[in-house]
Amino acid sequence: MSVHLEQISSNRCHGGWLTRYRHRSATLDCDMVFAVYLPPQAETRTVPALYWLSGLTCTDENFMQKAGAQRLAAELGIALVAPDTSPRGEDVPGDPEGAWDFGHGAGFYLNATLPPYSRHYRMHDYVVHELPALLEAQLPLNNRRSISGHSMGGHGALVCALRNPGRYRAVSAFAPISHPMDCPWGQKAFSRYLGEDESCWAAWDATRLISEASERLPLLVDQGEADSFLKAQLKPEALQIACTAAGHPLNLRMQAGYDHSYYFIASFIDDHLRHHAAALLD
Amino acid sequence: MSVHLEQISSNRCHGGWLTRYRHRSATLDCDMVFAVYLPPQAETRTVPALYWLSGLTCTDENFMQKAGAQRLAAELGIALVAPDTSPRGEDVPGDPEGAWDFGHGAGFYLNATLPPYSRHYRMHDYVVHELPALLEAQLPLNNRRSISGHSMGGHGALVCALRNPGRYRAVSAFAPISHPMDCPWGQKAFSRYLGEDESCWAAWDATRLISEASERLPLLVDQGEADSFLKAQLKPEALQIACTAAGHPLNLRMQAGYDHSYYFIASFIDDHLRHHAAALLD
Repeated sequence: MSVHLEQISSNRCHGGWLTRYRHRSATLDCDMVFAVYLPPQAETRTVPALYWLSGLTCTDENFMQKAGAQRLAAELGIALVAPDTSPRGEDVPGDPEGAWDFGHGAGFYLNATLPPYSRHYRMHDYVVHELPALLEAQLPLNNRRSISGHSMGGHGALVCALRNPGRYRAVSAFAPISHPMDCPWGQKAFSRYLGEDESCWAAWDATRLISEASERLPLLVDQGEADSFLKAQLKPEALQIACTAAGHPLNLRMQAGYDHSYYFIASFIDDHLRHHAAALLD
Repeated sequence: MSVHLEQISSNRCHGGWLTRYRHRSATLDCDMVFAVYLPPQAETRTVPALYWLSGLTCTDENFMQKAGAQRLAAELGIALVAPDTSPRGEDVPGDPEGAWDFGHGAGFYLNATLPPYSRHYRMHDYVVHELPALLEAQLPLNNRRSISGHSMGGHGALVCALRNPGRYRAVSAFAPISHPMDCPWGQKAFSRYLGEDESCWAAWDATRLISEASERLPLLVDQGEADSFLKAQLKPEALQIACTAAGHPLNLRMQAGYDHSYYFIASFIDDHLRHHAAALLD
């Protein structure tokens, strides 16, 4: 029996359609909302999809409203998929103090192992397995996938690609949390989702995963030099050192004057779309 | 003495800078916030400016965050200026019932004549005179101006251009309130801002102004056919009839499937930017 996709809204955009759906996620054990942009080409054939993972506090809406990605996606014939950033709902435990950097809006794209979070917080499996299976069965998407994201979602994109060789044709990130084991956001999230045993953390840390990567998928990473989170939270230099040591291809572009906002993402999203298109459409 | 521009925020975007400012408006007798996007070319010379007037409930932020206009503006070398949609503040009277279609966020880009609104609600003079004078004195903008907008702001753009021949080199609109005298939004606003004497309304109605226009500035108007406000509020057919009767050039493009959202604007903003650039950069 196919999962029911409830359509919430649909907007024509750049000749295609942006649609928001609600569905029951078996992986996350809650209702979830996501958005899909189908380019005009999807009216007559299946198209590949770029999965976009957003950052802390975001929903499926931020990227579609602010990144301006639909214009070139429509031209290239690539679908855009934006999931939410965590499980949601009154039954889903959030941050005990209501903080914005953990719990709702802060799922960190991992599979939690520690109660009470382990029941719902399985965003890795949701993004990598459940959502693509659902979409490829019910929408005109083929099985060519790539993945990108911003900040927490940049971490998510890198980790999803590194943990699942062969599943994505390309990967990129904007201002990713490159080494979450070694920054306050990551340490808070990992200790609560995974427990205090740090040996379990490396499996969700891009900088640590690089050394064991069996697939040499080239990484495109843009980072604003005026990003206020750069030094304490994002640490692209750690990723760069790991890539150099492992001989893993990395194109790390430090962008002078750019901050952590969606204006930064909008400025370089076309470069990322072309990077993904080269692998998705070859 | 030059007016002080207080910088609220600044974001690098597509090689230029998007900056929000607060200032004391003498015309509106209140503090106002606006946003300016300066393209990279403004670092070495003055550039022309496209003024964007937003719709009901908007501020200076909606267009800059959602329209995706900065990309091509940076390429063309055109500044974008986004004022707020009404005077603001606790001292500024709003809608007595707190409605969203009158008062705060709904200044209708006219000069009110009826108390208590006549003191602050002078958005026409603010947009046409005070703001350009301020910006051309303090920022690298030359005196080449054009104007566009959405919905209430589309009405504003058409009326500002039609009332002020020679002041704008180009004009366009997305889903404008084309004949406000003949729709509920316009009738509510005009009766309160201007009084019940409808003979005073025609001076703020694009469809009425067309017949007396001394300048034949070509109008580019995009309208979504799936726009839920099309029949009751927007009435582009009235504008079309008036243009035909007056021999005024109008390119009215009915866009199948598009609604009233910023996804519609984002889909066609590049066409409008090129329309304006042809006149601003000739």
